[in-house]
Amino acid sequence: MAVCEIISVGTEILLGNILDTNSRFLSRELAAMGISVFHRTTVGDNKERLAQAVRTALSRSDIVIATGGLGPTADDITKETCCEVMGSRLVFDEEAAARIRGYFSGQKRTMPESNFKQAYVPEDGVVFTNENGTAPGAGIKKNGKCLVVLPGPPFEMEPMFLKYVKPFLREYSGSVLVSSEIYTMGLGESAMAEAVSDLLELENPTVAPYCRMGEAFLRLTAMAENEERARELIKPVSDEIVRRLGNSVYGVDCGNIETRTVNLLKEKGLTLATAESCTAGLVAKRITDIPGASTVFKHGVITYANEVKVKVLGVDPGTLAAHGAVSEETALEMAAGIRRISGADIGVSVTGFAGPDADEEGKKPGLIYTAIDTADTRICKKTETGRNDRNYNRFVSASRALNLVREYAEKRGRTNEEQ
Amino acid sequence: MAVCEIISVGTEILLGNILDTNSRFLSRELAAMGISVFHRTTVGDNKERLAQAVRTALSRSDIVIATGGLGPTADDITKETCCEVMGSRLVFDEEAAARIRGYFSGQKRTMPESNFKQAYVPEDGVVFTNENGTAPGAGIKKNGKCLVVLPGPPFEMEPMFLKYVKPFLREYSGSVLVSSEIYTMGLGESAMAEAVSDLLELENPTVAPYCRMGEAFLRLTAMAENEERARELIKPVSDEIVRRLGNSVYGVDCGNIETRTVNLLKEKGLTLATAESCTAGLVAKRITDIPGASTVFKHGVITYANEVKVKVLGVDPGTLAAHGAVSEETALEMAAGIRRISGADIGVSVTGFAGPDADEEGKKPGLIYTAIDTADTRICKKTETGRNDRNYNRFVSASRALNLVREYAEKRGRTNEEQ
Repeated sequence: MAVCEIISVGTEILLGNILDTNSRFLSRELAAMGISVFHRTTVGDNKERLAQAVRTALSRSDIVIATGGLGPTADDITKETCCEVMGSRLVFDEEAAARIRGYFSGQKRTMPESNFKQAYVPEDGVVFTNENGTAPGAGIKKNGKCLVVLPGPPFEMEPMFLKYVKPFLREYSGSVLVSSEIYTMGLGESAMAEAVSDLLELENPTVAPYCRMGEAFLRLTAMAENEERARELIKPVSDEIVRRLGNSVYGVDCGNIETRTVNLLKEKGLTLATAESCTAGLVAKRITDIPGASTVFKHGVITYANEVKVKVLGVDPGTLAAHGAVSEETALEMAAGIRRISGADIGVSVTGFAGPDADEEGKKPGLIYTAIDTADTRICKKTETGRNDRNYNRFVSASRALNLVREYAEKRGRTNEEQ
Repeated sequence: MAVCEIISVGTEILLGNILDTNSRFLSRELAAMGISVFHRTTVGDNKERLAQAVRTALSRSDIVIATGGLGPTADDITKETCCEVMGSRLVFDEEAAARIRGYFSGQKRTMPESNFKQAYVPEDGVVFTNENGTAPGAGIKKNGKCLVVLPGPPFEMEPMFLKYVKPFLREYSGSVLVSSEIYTMGLGESAMAEAVSDLLELENPTVAPYCRMGEAFLRLTAMAENEERARELIKPVSDEIVRRLGNSVYGVDCGNIETRTVNLLKEKGLTLATAESCTAGLVAKRITDIPGASTVFKHGVITYANEVKVKVLGVDPGTLAAHGAVSEETALEMAAGIRRISGADIGVSVTGFAGPDADEEGKKPGLIYTAIDTADTRICKKTETGRNDRNYNRFVSASRALNLVREYAEKRGRTNEEQ
């Protein structure tokens, strides 16, 4: 199996000014190609240390990919240093220069002279066109080693890697790794892991439990000679897990609850309207993150203050007085109110204490009520996150509201089938 | 100046399954302490490669900080490997064991035997208590070198670093680096940089231009013997920049536009209500990200469909027919509508095409109108991002809406002073 080392170049990374997402992107892509990564290194814009890092990497890996430091200024030295280590001369490339000129004229800007530096490419290498910026990338294969230099900005680097570098590295691609993710909500990581504990011992695919912001998921990873075979290995294990975890599974490889919910609503021809208090727009925002959400979502209200809950949603002031804004009763009236004024099939509501501190009602941060109201159903669920973290509590509140809608829409399907 | 190297340990990082945010956190903290970071390395849960990485790091740096791989399972080898390289024996620590037992009993869970592995600590080292998990950290100072091992989960590592490791490293702390950020909106990075081009040549503080999601900012970084002196160096340069960039500056060190806007509204005693189309809750969500936003924000509506704009906000169907939903006229009527129904001082609206594709009205993705309506002002601003990126367009739309509110609230202050 071929081994690749990733070198991120940039003093701004070492100062912590920017987060290095390039290394993660490349790690994932290389894993999917069946290329191992055993080391990642970050060095600043320092010639000596960069050269040393490249030499060390070449001594222990088949492929070295360096990102960053291809800019037009004097401290951008990655291409020059890497070529020096590889013994490759840089030559002026007319085509690259023309592209750079074209990039500036397309934006109606004059090109600074310094940008011509970016038109120098290794004479014995391959040039990777930059379709989203001025610095081309380059690849050199020589003496049994492969060196690739790529620009630092992710929106330049990522498309360049996918379009040009992946084919350039094809000969190194070994067994492929394919992953699949099974997402659950409301179950907790321990309970989820316990239900499938025997499967956590499997070797191909491997099954590993993870958690993220109020949900737990399992990642299945299979290694095989090609993607199709890897998927065949995953299938029976995935089916077994979904069978065991039942309704706690909200989706497989769907990415997140909002994608799954919007797609289900589309599939069933249902519409949704939102009434939000503590999440204040986050449920609606996440629904409309999905392109084409307008077929299922048309109307939402944010009733952050109690008087707005009464005035806009018709919540009974007596309910608020007796039970408080954060209560099952208020959540149900909010859901009924938004369904009535919107005419949607499903009204969904959220009310809760996000924190960071206790509310005047004396209830604890992390106490959340989510409710749905439809022609045939009224459901309210209570969640206690036990955390005093505003961002976390708001995100989890929105997720639970979406999950209530998802559960209703899924049952609707089953009911229809049974009829 | 002392030099520190950061080693992240974990196969899941090399596979790209998780993003390494620990390295960035440590980089920033160390920079602020005046400790240089010249190298960062990532290796997997592999004893040989980890030992080699630690030996290399110790040979070229004064301090080595390793994060991750302190868990209870067999593949967690960071502590054992680091201690072996340092020649430090691991001994069972009763206090650490008691803490781990207490952690489990506090969560009403039984402790697996394997967790006792985490109670072994270096006999010649310092133990850092883990207040958010079970694995303690450790620090060893020996033979002129310093080695620190920390748990991988950021919510365990970060508080441990701040509380215990920072004091442990105090003797290495050199000149401090202090940064200040000046945020602008609507100006663009090139124009911003041009206006202060002479200041970009300064050496202390340095001034560097950056951009992020629809805004440009300048980071000033000063090095001095203490924080107070560093702030004195920054002050006159910062003041000069703010003077030159004028109203494009929305804040200094405020973090983001929503924080600045909410704080300004609080200061001036103004209330705000939102009417959102393409952003669908994102403006309200960002306002209420700020704790205590409820004093300025009580009511928002999401009118994703045209019929809801008419029914809820009273937008004239003739306006929609003549100019379309994405128009100055519609934006202004939405802002007026939400102000009327909410009774807030300021009504703010957003309507635009987020993309990814062109709308039926034939207008381009990235075309955005934001408007405000108050007792004395009606303003609409048009923005064309030129990008077909839904997430970007929605974020920038929300930012521009918040900036309109910010500009109004700032002027209100000036008007009052003039009176």
